[in-house]
Amino acid sequence: MTGSTALGPVLIIGTGLIGASIGQSLRRANIDVMLEDINESSAWTAAQMGAGTPMGEGGSPSTIVVAVPPRFTGEVIASATKRFPSATVTDVASVKASVLAEARAAGADMRRVVGGHPMAGREIAGALGARADLLDDRLWIITPEADASDEAVMQVHRLITACGAYAVEMSPDEHDRAVALVSHTPQLVSSVLAAQLVQAKDEHVRVAGQGLRDMTRIAGSNPELWVDILSANPQPVADVLREFIDGLEDALAKIKTGSGINEVLERGNVGRARVPGKHGATAEAYAVVPVMIADRPGELARLFTAAADADVSIEDVTIEHVLGRPSGLVELAVAPSAATTLREALAVGGFDVRA
Amino acid sequence: MTGSTALGPVLIIGTGLIGASIGQSLRRANIDVMLEDINESSAWTAAQMGAGTPMGEGGSPSTIVVAVPPRFTGEVIASATKRFPSATVTDVASVKASVLAEARAAGADMRRVVGGHPMAGREIAGALGARADLLDDRLWIITPEADASDEAVMQVHRLITACGAYAVEMSPDEHDRAVALVSHTPQLVSSVLAAQLVQAKDEHVRVAGQGLRDMTRIAGSNPELWVDILSANPQPVADVLREFIDGLEDALAKIKTGSGINEVLERGNVGRARVPGKHGATAEAYAVVPVMIADRPGELARLFTAAADADVSIEDVTIEHVLGRPSGLVELAVAPSAATTLREALAVGGFDVRA
Repeated sequence: MTGSTALGPVLIIGTGLIGASIGQSLRRANIDVMLEDINESSAWTAAQMGAGTPMGEGGSPSTIVVAVPPRFTGEVIASATKRFPSATVTDVASVKASVLAEARAAGADMRRVVGGHPMAGREIAGALGARADLLDDRLWIITPEADASDEAVMQVHRLITACGAYAVEMSPDEHDRAVALVSHTPQLVSSVLAAQLVQAKDEHVRVAGQGLRDMTRIAGSNPELWVDILSANPQPVADVLREFIDGLEDALAKIKTGSGINEVLERGNVGRARVPGKHGATAEAYAVVPVMIADRPGELARLFTAAADADVSIEDVTIEHVLGRPSGLVELAVAPSAATTLREALAVGGFDVRA
Repeated sequence: MTGSTALGPVLIIGTGLIGASIGQSLRRANIDVMLEDINESSAWTAAQMGAGTPMGEGGSPSTIVVAVPPRFTGEVIASATKRFPSATVTDVASVKASVLAEARAAGADMRRVVGGHPMAGREIAGALGARADLLDDRLWIITPEADASDEAVMQVHRLITACGAYAVEMSPDEHDRAVALVSHTPQLVSSVLAAQLVQAKDEHVRVAGQGLRDMTRIAGSNPELWVDILSANPQPVADVLREFIDGLEDALAKIKTGSGINEVLERGNVGRARVPGKHGATAEAYAVVPVMIADRPGELARLFTAAADADVSIEDVTIEHVLGRPSGLVELAVAPSAATTLREALAVGGFDVRA
């Protein structure tokens, strides 16, 4: 036990994007950070990026962040609890139950281990992609198990706060089910949907609109990364995918009998309304103001300047490109109370505001 | 046969959003338009919106656009060919094979019938939502059958050109398979995926990010509208959905055995690359420049002004909202050749440009 209320020296093991970014954000908060990587030059690179100092002999961290690939995480957690018999150890792997079970099996002192998963939005490999603000405002799930000490849990809360993120506690199994539902299964669905286009005729694919574009965006994700993630969470993904397939079989039966398909669509409406919107809140009903603009430098600037001059905050922007000609429909999402103000301001500015 | 090379008087039957918008765009091109609706006041509303003139006694259209709901379209096409024995007749129903078969069964003179489906992006009911530019730059699929005369096909081409849209020819069956693949099945997939969230715990749904938001956007669509569309195209949708479910079963088996899931993800990459991007072209590889901005009026304006001042054309914009605090990551998609210019200009402007 460190007994300290402040966050003591932190050791980061693994100085890729996430490890180095955590280092930078802790340094930003004036916390001592030591860096270690199986590849020594990677730790030096992270140090040069302002993520901390390479770990020397006799370093004595109070908290350790294991930020190595998921398949090594359990083992590295266990070795960290042995090397530093009073330190709290957390990790950043995107699956939790299997990783923590591996740590336990490898002899980790689980009283000092609290699993973690920062929901950082972007996947760019390596310390060179690190940003001190990568974790700002992010959810950071922690998955304390029954034998974790209160002090270890508190210490990881302090770490997360120092990084500018928000801690949310759940059990490892709950975490794995949650990410299977909201992230891993949607990834597979998008990939399989996009895969259906591989053999499709050009003229058929050409008819696609924004709906298909949205549905297949994450099908463009890095396969290597996702093989690792999916392989580490097979059971929860299989469970959610099974349930999804059953839902589709039901929809298919309704299409064939021509009866009840409205239930599927209405239930989709209800589910969609639960998806978090901006700032992690439940999706808000913004008013959408569509504007047709010419596609040339300056038009978007003119548009946003007109909105700003009217003191209207744009909550979201979608550009729905049209076919064949250089113009596009821009949809501005604003608070319902601001929609009329925006419409009027844009009309005065000569913009083609749509109904 | 009209024998005329110009587009003669056009009769629009059904003055909802699409019918009235077609009327407005034809009027914009100085073409005479007559309007008819089973609800007389609707035709008058459309007339007041500039879509044409309510059809009086003795009107003699050269071309007729049937823009009534899909389930009435076949019958109305047939009656139109009987009322006007020399006119060309087209329609705008979003499914084609069943509608044209109904027209034929109802005794339509199919030499003068050419099915159509304008790919208008938005679904707002009623003439009051009509816009003269709704069809501008849109694909407008036409589905001539073997017995359609060349003159009828040519006449419908002229109509589409006059509306500012692009004609693409395919067979009715091909059309129905294409929209099942790129539109109808994705709608069901999104609805079923969103439906899985109905029973999910709040903490689980809260973890969702942009991927799930994209995948469930169209699950928010109008169920009534989609029941009509799906009911009129059951077999092609069932075929595509069956194939999709088989693809998911294969992915599920791979998840369970822990082997081969990379193939699913890689195939998803290939399919995604086929989805049309801006201007209907095959998806281009834009460079993405991410910028973290404060969420207050004026910041987006300042951002786009900086881009415009640097003469950089923004091809697409995504705002990836972060949680809990008023700031957001804006991703600007630009031509790869313009990325460095944009980065430098934004850095000079004091923007927080991300790696």
